[in-house]
Amino acid sequence: MRIALGVEYNGAEFCGWQIQEAGVRTVQGCVEHALSIVANHPVTAICAGRTDKGVHALSQVIHINVTAERTMRSWILGTNVNMPNDIGILWAQPVDDHFHARFSALGRYYRYVILNRTVRPALLINKVAWDYRPLDIERMQAGGDYLLGTHDFTSYRAVGCQAKNPVRTIKYLTIKRQQDYVIIEICANAFLHHMVRNIAGVLIAIGCSEQSPEWAKQVLDACDRTAGGVTAPASGLYFQGVIYPEAYQFPQATLPVL
Amino acid sequence: MRIALGVEYNGAEFCGWQIQEAGVRTVQGCVEHALSIVANHPVTAICAGRTDKGVHALSQVIHINVTAERTMRSWILGTNVNMPNDIGILWAQPVDDHFHARFSALGRYYRYVILNRTVRPALLINKVAWDYRPLDIERMQAGGDYLLGTHDFTSYRAVGCQAKNPVRTIKYLTIKRQQDYVIIEICANAFLHHMVRNIAGVLIAIGCSEQSPEWAKQVLDACDRTAGGVTAPASGLYFQGVIYPEAYQFPQATLPVL
Repeated sequence: MRIALGVEYNGAEFCGWQIQEAGVRTVQGCVEHALSIVANHPVTAICAGRTDKGVHALSQVIHINVTAERTMRSWILGTNVNMPNDIGILWAQPVDDHFHARFSALGRYYRYVILNRTVRPALLINKVAWDYRPLDIERMQAGGDYLLGTHDFTSYRAVGCQAKNPVRTIKYLTIKRQQDYVIIEICANAFLHHMVRNIAGVLIAIGCSEQSPEWAKQVLDACDRTAGGVTAPASGLYFQGVIYPEAYQFPQATLPVL
Repeated sequence: MRIALGVEYNGAEFCGWQIQEAGVRTVQGCVEHALSIVANHPVTAICAGRTDKGVHALSQVIHINVTAERTMRSWILGTNVNMPNDIGILWAQPVDDHFHARFSALGRYYRYVILNRTVRPALLINKVAWDYRPLDIERMQAGGDYLLGTHDFTSYRAVGCQAKNPVRTIKYLTIKRQQDYVIIEICANAFLHHMVRNIAGVLIAIGCSEQSPEWAKQVLDACDRTAGGVTAPASGLYFQGVIYPEAYQFPQATLPVL
């Protein structure tokens, strides 16, 4: 049978989602190890969106195929006791065999959190990006608006990105400020490698008046990664959730509160 | 001259505020070490409220006496470069010699954050308390209301608490829920040792219906620590800020956003 699961992780101590050679601590490695213990057979996990080293997830979605019969409660609790404390299963639901965590996804949403004050973060080390230059969120929003809709995002993807098609559709891109924090909320059908962090890098340069809002469009139109800005750090990036067809009713991620 | 400073720290890797024998990592030890480098003479830091091992601070307030002349910017930035990344100076302001971080304080406020869901925290390990039992915040508020005002808090202080007088005045105690998070906001003229965590322990027992709201008053009236509940874990506790006479205008702490 096929099961979908929600996964939360603190990315700080993981070398990203994808399994690598032995000894490298990855999200996929930890999840598959624990699920295999519960299933009592080897389990492969497919995720909705791979995340890089240092990137967090409020609710990554994965699917697995298993022959073992367990309650959903057992999949959750049994897996959690076999994982380190910086990763946890949030929920588990049986799904039909047509469900695919990656290919069934209609959209993914991320948030990028920037602590915007003169002094570096202490409480939230590894959990936020930091910029000491005052960021003007109206400028950032004006820049971000140029990216809405369907475009070739070649300028905003990592040079090594392996996607065949660089065209993606951004459904929304919203900049908010809450006191010292600036948050970029972004949703697209799918994302290219480093796409959110490269967008954040451009919007930060616009927000601190290093560049004009129109620069976001100039970078886009160039279709050339070297036209872009710096890649913003992984620490500020949160994989927030996934949009699936309405037939699949999964719990939504809760935003952290401190 | 005397200087007041705001200090933020992630308490997870500190053995509390107070300096101990060599080799024990304390907030006071880190702050005094860094300030002494900037001052080029030994500096002693007095804080508004000592925190225990694992307790965080959004804005602890300290004062120091120094003979070195530096700009406030230098006290902030120079101290920060000499401290580890889980502690930082937020602001610095010159104050008159009558100001005392502890004795001038009219009130302190804390917040206690509980992740209230079936699965343990992964993203916020060491940053929240966790309870899997559904907490009813109306019951918790009803219990907390018994503690408002001036009382002998003997039942809510650690057995080893060294304060001469167990009477304290709680100015407000408010329970809020934001999705999966339950937050206790509490302000008092001063707090006894473990007082917030002991109150949180009682309110959690009430919130999950293990006890009635009236139990908070029964515990209070007993004037006996053994009548109380379990001490809630340090990980959920944040020293949020200090109230001083209006003549001292210090920046207020910003609540973290993720």
